[in-house]
Amino acid sequence: MVNRFMFRGIEIQFRFDVTLSMDSTNEIEAPQDMLLDMEITSFFDSAPPLKDGIDIDRKITEFIERHSPLSGNLGERRIVCVTSGGTTVPLERRCVRFIDNFSSGHRGAASTEYFLKAGYGVIFLYRRGSCQPYCRFLPDDPFLECFEFTQESNVQVSESHFEVVKKAISNHHAAIAEGMLLKLPYTTIFEYLQILHKIAVPMRTLGGQGMFYLAAAVSDFYVPWNSMAEHKIQSASGPLDMRLVQVPKMLSMLRKIWAPLAFCISFKLETDSNILLQKADMALQKYKMHAVVANELSTRKDEVVVVTSNERISVKRDKAVAGDDVENHLIKLLVDRHSLYIKAGPDHGA
Amino acid sequence: MVNRFMFRGIEIQFRFDVTLSMDSTNEIEAPQDMLLDMEITSFFDSAPPLKDGIDIDRKITEFIERHSPLSGNLGERRIVCVTSGGTTVPLERRCVRFIDNFSSGHRGAASTEYFLKAGYGVIFLYRRGSCQPYCRFLPDDPFLECFEFTQESNVQVSESHFEVVKKAISNHHAAIAEGMLLKLPYTTIFEYLQILHKIAVPMRTLGGQGMFYLAAAVSDFYVPWNSMAEHKIQSASGPLDMRLVQVPKMLSMLRKIWAPLAFCISFKLETDSNILLQKADMALQKYKMHAVVANELSTRKDEVVVVTSNERISVKRDKAVAGDDVENHLIKLLVDRHSLYIKAGPDHGA
Repeated sequence: MVNRFMFRGIEIQFRFDVTLSMDSTNEIEAPQDMLLDMEITSFFDSAPPLKDGIDIDRKITEFIERHSPLSGNLGERRIVCVTSGGTTVPLERRCVRFIDNFSSGHRGAASTEYFLKAGYGVIFLYRRGSCQPYCRFLPDDPFLECFEFTQESNVQVSESHFEVVKKAISNHHAAIAEGMLLKLPYTTIFEYLQILHKIAVPMRTLGGQGMFYLAAAVSDFYVPWNSMAEHKIQSASGPLDMRLVQVPKMLSMLRKIWAPLAFCISFKLETDSNILLQKADMALQKYKMHAVVANELSTRKDEVVVVTSNERISVKRDKAVAGDDVENHLIKLLVDRHSLYIKAGPDHGA
Repeated sequence: MVNRFMFRGIEIQFRFDVTLSMDSTNEIEAPQDMLLDMEITSFFDSAPPLKDGIDIDRKITEFIERHSPLSGNLGERRIVCVTSGGTTVPLERRCVRFIDNFSSGHRGAASTEYFLKAGYGVIFLYRRGSCQPYCRFLPDDPFLECFEFTQESNVQVSESHFEVVKKAISNHHAAIAEGMLLKLPYTTIFEYLQILHKIAVPMRTLGGQGMFYLAAAVSDFYVPWNSMAEHKIQSASGPLDMRLVQVPKMLSMLRKIWAPLAFCISFKLETDSNILLQKADMALQKYKMHAVVANELSTRKDEVVVVTSNERISVKRDKAVAGDDVENHLIKLLVDRHSLYIKAGPDHGA
């Protein structure tokens, strides 16, 4: 059966039984999937190339190999890819203005600490300048606020910050030195999705041992690179009208093609609690996530709701325990669920 | 003579001979000025209130008084307000998404160092997280990259970064301790313009000794707070159309009302060199700046052109001298011009 539809002004014909050219056993069954794939191809084709793509590939491959059962170097360890911070959408090619998604990166940084504590290798895909693991309790500008210049012409940690600085630097450096933490920075939505793809494809070799914990605030809308203004938009008289198109839903691609056996957790942030759980449910079904973590902007540090196909589990910070985080309980729950998922085998869990 | 025009759907009547209610000797002569004043009033009225406005007022007043001829504490010193980094424009009230203006803050940070060297007191109005004075040569994340944890359970500067860290911390802290540098952070366009206003009004007491060096990348367009979505914009199907309105031109207000005797320098950044000088000329005339610094995105660290009413002076970094900055020469030139301006007296210079 041949179908016809319009895509970017070009009439497209296709048959229902085509399969994707990427190496996958999943057949593409519906025209929506075909359309999505084309949108994604178009997104990647038009994206500016990553500056240090080869170096990033090498780092990811080495990290995953070190943790894989074949090399045995660090045993058969689980690996989680934690995404953190917010992506930007450039409005001009020679970028002066961009749209940004607010996210401090606290959730991703805290979660990384608890995943490391649970023995996971962590690939931390973070927004440049966002919060780093073990650095959550530092002041805004730790470099200028925590150190002082002594009379002996030396630089030392000021006494009031000594404990928090010591913990941050020792834990952070230890995680990297032990080969448990790989940090990869991004800024734009183009960089984020390209690097996520680079991580996901070799993660396939881990099967169910791999996990994605997608806490980054990813732009919903973008200006396609090839329709973007070359130069700075001029502020002539009158208002500025902008048309942004939707970012293709990469979560579908991640689940179906890139790493179909990995355990996948995504996040839903809303400011309106009335629509939050409904939106989380929709995301769960649409992208076939194993769980969606629903959080509301104003209470996100105290409580989240883990939505699965048959449960809604409220996870709260224990206010009676000083320094307790909601991520402490959230990661414990998700690690347990990941264990069950591995035990059940991919055919049951996926 | 009575004039009528429409403003935000309301018919407005006014007479040509009205004066502004702000304490000013400058009469508003044209309906354009009246309209601008109303736009500015509307902008400030609708802006969310500053969180720590009283504290900011106190810091500014104390800083200016310490440098004023009356207190004599630090002599009759010149003060420059250096603005640095880029402003954000929130797209939602409970802000998840915002438009940002790219600026690392290197220009403002470097210029602050040279103004301090020239003996100026500097009010550094900077974007949170942007580059700080004396910290330009540090790596991206100096806290995690420059320090190490020793076997004796101590934190120390790694040898490779020792000199750059020592200089950064000692010079920065010295400038603040000596009362020569006041740092005030902002994030949004609303914060930036409210704090700039708070700085400008007491700067009036300095007359021609005061200077504004407006290097921040200020948003041209914004979403008025009172027409902004309360909740996160939903990414329903289809593209997102946004209408942004122009930010009222505060430079006119600064020159005419807030601090009419101060020496004022603004910046013009373009990516297209063909229109750069023409745009700088327009800004010079429109906002009655004493000079406009024209810079092109790709060459901005090597060369700028200082545009005045009768000159175009090219200022270049000396590539033969290691570590030379374009700001070194730019600030020397502007300090000289500021001296001439003070000597000539406000009636000639303004």
